[in-house]
Amino acid sequence: MSATPPSSPQETSVTGAVEVFALLAAGELAAFARLADDAAHAPELRLRIVLSRMAAADLSPLDRVEQHVADLGVDPEELDDLIWEFREVLAEFDARTTPRDWWERLVRTYVGYGVFTDLERAVTAGLEGESAAVAAEVLGDAGLSDFVAATLRPVIDAEAQLGARLALWGRRTVGEAIGIAARLLQTHPELARSAATGLGLADASSSEQTTAVLNRLTSEHARRMNRLGLTA
Amino acid sequence: MSATPPSSPQETSVTGAVEVFALLAAGELAAFARLADDAAHAPELRLRIVLSRMAAADLSPLDRVEQHVADLGVDPEELDDLIWEFREVLAEFDARTTPRDWWERLVRTYVGYGVFTDLERAVTAGLEGESAAVAAEVLGDAGLSDFVAATLRPVIDAEAQLGARLALWGRRTVGEAIGIAARLLQTHPELARSAATGLGLADASSSEQTTAVLNRLTSEHARRMNRLGLTA
Repeated sequence: MSATPPSSPQETSVTGAVEVFALLAAGELAAFARLADDAAHAPELRLRIVLSRMAAADLSPLDRVEQHVADLGVDPEELDDLIWEFREVLAEFDARTTPRDWWERLVRTYVGYGVFTDLERAVTAGLEGESAAVAAEVLGDAGLSDFVAATLRPVIDAEAQLGARLALWGRRTVGEAIGIAARLLQTHPELARSAATGLGLADASSSEQTTAVLNRLTSEHARRMNRLGLTA
Repeated sequence: MSATPPSSPQETSVTGAVEVFALLAAGELAAFARLADDAAHAPELRLRIVLSRMAAADLSPLDRVEQHVADLGVDPEELDDLIWEFREVLAEFDARTTPRDWWERLVRTYVGYGVFTDLERAVTAGLEGESAAVAAEVLGDAGLSDFVAATLRPVIDAEAQLGARLALWGRRTVGEAIGIAARLLQTHPELARSAATGLGLADASSSEQTTAVLNRLTSEHARRMNRLGLTA
């Protein structure tokens, strides 16, 4: 028996693309579940309807992702296993951050959606050709961040004590989100490599790449908390 | 001060239509929440994706309902209050029937979706003109019953003990569903009247109308349990 031949560049690129698209699919499923759960807890009808619709919208790119990965010739079971694995890791964010009220719930969704969408956007940087085009198409923002910011900002501006509590909660939740992003990048170096390409660090070490991506996620988070009138 | 004048037939008809469409909207929101929760509990990826998609599909007719009720010239706040009230009543079905495992969860969804969809279909019978057309458009089946029956039937056929437990559970859950349907019809005679029209009982008493509708829901349920190989 001969040893396994080294991967060709083409094979490496497909593996990377599969991991990236599995993360996008898992992110869509996790966002759907989180927003649907938020909708179920919404204190009044219009909020419930808006969040339910945003949950549904988050799911719609899934078709496109599945079709594209099938076009790449990937074994569907391999893809499903990877989506399931990523989804379980992403779900830990929710399991570890139980909100005490509606406002903490909205902040959690705002923080989690922001960090994980930034992570998804980052890891698509190394994609090329059709894969890059599909990723760009799939990664549209359904307006969730704007909606949550518009809902939270006036309440935070009006109640300093609530603002202080939510700032603390924002730090707690972003800690969990960044921890999960770190775990995904460390256990799947192809994701880190793809994201680092977009930061001009294609040749850096895997741990340097991970650190650079996490720094980017953290600074984007600070910018988002600023929109709420909170310090990250 | 003069007494409130009796409603004209036109006013009565619009009130009836508003209650019917509020029930349709509440049913869509409740089904979305239930299916999204089922999806979150699904033991593997394909089930999770199918149920998430069906949840999202259940929500899509909401636009059409809202637009139509607005066209009827109804006060949006009045409509929202009614949707919220109906939704809370429908949500009691889920609160009162906590499934012990995945199979009980699927049976609960099958039973609840069946009874409440039948109820929605029944109460649209008294609609006329554009309202009737919109209702027919909105009440399409996204294939949930077929999907659940196809998933459950082989498992039930293969495991007699599970089948016996699920038959018992089916009776428990349909009892709750019919109880909720009864409450909706009793507290909103316009709904009962609209449904009775389709059964040729437009002139019967309100309680006779309610009984006739509940009998219809019960016999449709028996037919559905039969599809699973279970006795209602």
